[in-house]
This record gives sequence, structure tokens and C-alpha cells, in this order.
Amino acid sequence: MTAGPRSGPVLVIDIGGTKMAAGVADPGGRLITWTQVPTARDVDAERLWRNLEDLVLEVLSAAKVADPAELSGVGCGCGGPMEWPAGLVSPLNIPAWRRFPLRERLAERFGAGGGHVRVHNDAICVAAGEHWRGAGRGKRNVMGMVVSTGVGGGLILNNRLIDGASGNAGHIGHVVVYPDGPACVCGGRGCLEAIARGPALAEWAQQHGWRPDQPGVTAKDLTADAAQGHEMAVAALRRAGYALGIAVASATSLCDLDVVAVGGGLSQAGSLLFEPLQEALDVHARLDFTRKVRVVPAALGQHAGMVGAAALISAGDRYWTAG
Amino acid sequence: MTAGPRSGPVLVIDIGGTKMAAGVADPGGRLITWTQVPTARDVDAERLWRNLEDLVLEVLSAAKVADPAELSGVGCGCGGPMEWPAGLVSPLNIPAWRRFPLRERLAERFGAGGGHVRVHNDAICVAAGEHWRGAGRGKRNVMGMVVSTGVGGGLILNNRLIDGASGNAGHIGHVVVYPDGPACVCGGRGCLEAIARGPALAEWAQQHGWRPDQPGVTAKDLTADAAQGHEMAVAALRRAGYALGIAVASATSLCDLDVVAVGGGLSQAGSLLFEPLQEALDVHARLDFTRKVRVVPAALGQHAGMVGAAALISAGDRYWTAG
Repeated sequence: MTAGPRSGPVLVIDIGGTKMAAGVADPGGRLITWTQVPTARDVDAERLWRNLEDLVLEVLSAAKVADPAELSGVGCGCGGPMEWPAGLVSPLNIPAWRRFPLRERLAERFGAGGGHVRVHNDAICVAAGEHWRGAGRGKRNVMGMVVSTGVGGGLILNNRLIDGASGNAGHIGHVVVYPDGPACVCGGRGCLEAIARGPALAEWAQQHGWRPDQPGVTAKDLTADAAQGHEMAVAALRRAGYALGIAVASATSLCDLDVVAVGGGLSQAGSLLFEPLQEALDVHARLDFTRKVRVVPAALGQHAGMVGAAALISAGDRYWTAG
Repeated sequence: MTAGPRSGPVLVIDIGGTKMAAGVADPGGRLITWTQVPTARDVDAERLWRNLEDLVLEVLSAAKVADPAELSGVGCGCGGPMEWPAGLVSPLNIPAWRRFPLRERLAERFGAGGGHVRVHNDAICVAAGEHWRGAGRGKRNVMGMVVSTGVGGGLILNNRLIDGASGNAGHIGHVVVYPDGPACVCGGRGCLEAIARGPALAEWAQQHGWRPDQPGVTAKDLTADAAQGHEMAVAALRRAGYALGIAVASATSLCDLDVVAVGGGLSQAGSLLFEPLQEALDVHARLDFTRKVRVVPAALGQHAGMVGAAALISAGDRYWTAG
């Protein structure tokens, strides 16, 4: 392989259980174009790959990239777990892919330019994006969080993305907030995710009298009702926000963070989530250095994952440590 | 200043509320000689400095270092908090020093060789020592812990010491384990340290019937009694070990650690502490990557802080990020 054109556009991809997004970014991380489709269910591994292939060809065409060889690299965020940095993915919410060789397939199909093809956890990409071009810009120690169907995150410490032993650093969703709390999908107990993930919120609220007889209501409905002042919907967000604050306090004590950027669908609840979060911080983050942490809404919205995927390529000195 | 002789010996210092230790290390981190004295109480800042000065002159003499100019550098661990990297120290347990310019004073007195003079948190030095020459050797993602009068720690991620925004990363003692738990000296609630620090253990055990009428008994007495099978002493260590396991589970989820090395006086309790620790891990660290973490006793004992102080100088590429 020859080195790709460093000034060329970057193909960026963000794959989750709900949607697959692809875009083309300039070397500064600005999205020239992007699009997304729902992640197909009940399809096999190859069919899902072809869906992604079609999506990518569409954005390359829209960005007037006639040949993948013009790309300077390919960056991709994907739901975990995965074997990293090999990029064999087994996303919890995409049963079709088990040890699917995503990095290798992307390299074969779109790696002709000879630039890097890099796959990392989707929440880690969100954190990288928020640090590079979003709410954590200019700060050296940042945690990015995604509060949605799950609760994920990523760490940038001393201006470098932290991967951990197996590329899994940043799993704030499995920090323990209430040791005797509810069972978590991970098999543990009292994890932040077991309390603050959207479906857990909706379930808790329903058990406490919010829309008790309506199956299929979601955290989005809950947030809408809370904004209208529905007492139990407000209480559910309060419970989640407080749990988030406890976990942020623990992460700040351990990592001495400057900024925590909170994104994901649930962060749209605004002060209904951020106020109880700050209350918990006021109780549990009391050392001088922990009191200085700033918790802010993420700035890049649904683009954060793609911008972070671009960072893996265009700012690899900070956001990629593997070979 | 000229660059110091890189192959010369390193002056190493470890300052805590109970004792002050000093030694001379070779560039590989082996202690040529060392000694310690109790940290004087009820003395003023200058008197305490002179005690340290005398201690250092004693080890320099023992190591046949006739002139501080022969030193390749000075590494020092000191109880926090401190202004880092400036090395203005205000150790919680040493009231005589408030914003004491320790780094500057060490540089004036023993920095004639022109090598680096570096001061960092004592628990961070322990973690660095255990990573460089102890139980974490050869691993890239390590947390070192000190369980003693307080509970402290330090992080090495991707083979580099993590400092955080203000040099305070690694405060595992203030990770929240029971949000409604006992008040902590930091002003928070339910911190690991509020439960697992030696004095808290002894107090809890006394409240539950262990040597109820004996003032002044310590965690050391407790550990001795537990080894003899005293039920409440065993229960107190169990409670502390379990809390340690919860905090280690959270830290592992967040940082994807290979190894956690646990030292400090309380770690001498052995399986009475490590078994409940592992039990809590088995409950709360369930993701594949967190199940892989190994929790081991620290290997360097009371030397860890001095070896880590040597690492700040002799392996500064990994253990010192400030200018």
C-alpha cells in the first residue's frame, strides 16, 4: 500500500443498532455530505454489509468522489463489543454481525487510496468528535457520554484518546452507582446504564404510574411528557440525572477531568436531566479539583460519531494509538 | 542549568503524614540505600524542612554521594493536595506545610547537578513504582492503590502515567461506592475511603462489638485480631474488601485495566481483604473485558513510593508529562 493523499476527503461511518450513517469529511473534520438509513433487522451479515456499501456509494457520489482511491482514509465508529484494533465487530444490538470483519471489508472495498482504515467503538468516536470539534475543544481531559438506549462514553486524557487494554475504555455505563440497584444487561447490578438508559427510565416511570397501560412508549415520550410537567416523567428523569451525577463524580475523582460532554437522545431533556446531575455532583464531588469539572451538553448532536470517525484518520496522532 | 549526569544516582523522597523516607536509587530504580523518620508533629514549616534536609544528607552520605551535584535528579512523592507540577504542597496530614514550595526548596538545596527536580502525589508515585518495577511491570494499563490511613491511587494507561487536569488523577478513594453511605473527610458521602480507610474500619468494628472499650486501637490491631478469627474484625475487613471490589469494578469499566496492584498497610490482611474484593468484582465486573482484570498485592511494599519517585526522573518519558 502507498500512503493515501493526506489532503483528500475522509470517508466516515457511524454504525449503531438503530441507524447506519455515512458521510464524507474534509481533513478539518467538516462534513461535506452525509446520509443515514435505519439498521435493517432480520437480515444476514452479507445483506447488512451490502446496505452499508450502498449507503457509502451514495455519499461518495454526493460528494463527487468518483473513485475510493481519492480518499485519504476511512474512519468508522461501530457499536461494541469488538476485537480492537482488528475491527472484528459483534455489536450487542446488531445480531447479524458476530465477529464480522468490518475493518477488513472496508479496507478491501474503500481502501484503495492506501490511507488508514480504522474502526473504533461508536461512543469512543463520539467522545473523540466532541473533543476535536465539539464541547471539549481546547481541553486536555474530557469524557464524552452518550445517554440513549444504552449509556456509553469515551475518555481523552492528557489530550490523547484512551483505549485501555482491549479498546474498551470509557464504559461509564457500567460504573456502579447503586451496588444493590437493578440488574444490568451486562449481568452486573446497579450499573449507571441499568438506571439511566432510556428503556429503563420508561419502565421505571410506567411502574410508578406514568402511562401505565401503554405498551411501546419510549424515553422520547417520557421526555416530552416531562417537559409538560408530568410528575412521574419528571421524577424518572430526575432519578436518571442523579445517577449520572454520581457516575460523573466517580469518573472525575479517578481521572481529574476538565469537561464532561453529555449527548445522546436523553440529553435533549435539558435541565430536567442536567439539574439533578449537578445536584448529585454537588454532593459527591467535593474535593477542590473535582468541583472544577464542567458538565455540558454535547455540541455536535447526531454528527459527533462521524466527526470522531474523521478524527481517527485526520488527527490520528491524538485519537489513534494502535499500530 | 546544565543537564545533569544521566547515569548518576537519583535522590528519592517519599513524604507522608506518618513518616518521611529518603533514599538514593541507581538509574534502574534499585535503591542503593534508604532511611526514614517519623514525620514530626507540632513543628513549623522550616523545622520540618530541616528534618527532611538532615534525612537527605544522611542518605547521601551513606550512598557516598559527596556533593549533590553528582545527582542526576531528584524525585519526590508527597501527600496531597498540591499545586502540580509547581510542587507547592499542602498535605492534608501535615498541617505545617501549606503551599510549601517543596519543589523549589529541593531544587535550591539538592538540584546543583542540573537534573530534573520533580514532585508528584505520593500515591501516584506508588502506582508509578509498581508499574515500573513492581506488580504491574510489563502491563500497559495499571491502577496502583494504597489502602492505609487514607485510600489513594494512580493510573498508568497506554503505558503512560495519567496526571489529569491538575495532577490529581487516580483518586480512587473518592469513587462513590454507596451513595447513601457514611460521610467522607472530603465532604462527600459514600466514598470508598469513607468505608475502607483503616481508621473507618476500626471505628466500624468497635461500634459492632470489637474491643469496644479500648480507645486508640488501630486497623493494625484489627488485622491481627482478624487473622486470629475474631468475628467482627473479619467482618470489618470483609466490608472494606467488598467496597474496594466495587470501586475496582467501576475503575475497570471506565479505564479497561489489565492489572490493579493493591498496597498499603491494610493489604497485609491478605485473603481476608482480597477474597471479598474478588467477590464484589465477580458481581459487578461482568463484561468480558472487565472480567479479565487481575487484582494483585503490590510487590514493592514500603519502597514503592521511592521507586516511583525514581521513575519520575529515570523514566520520565513514561512517568512525567509536565514541562
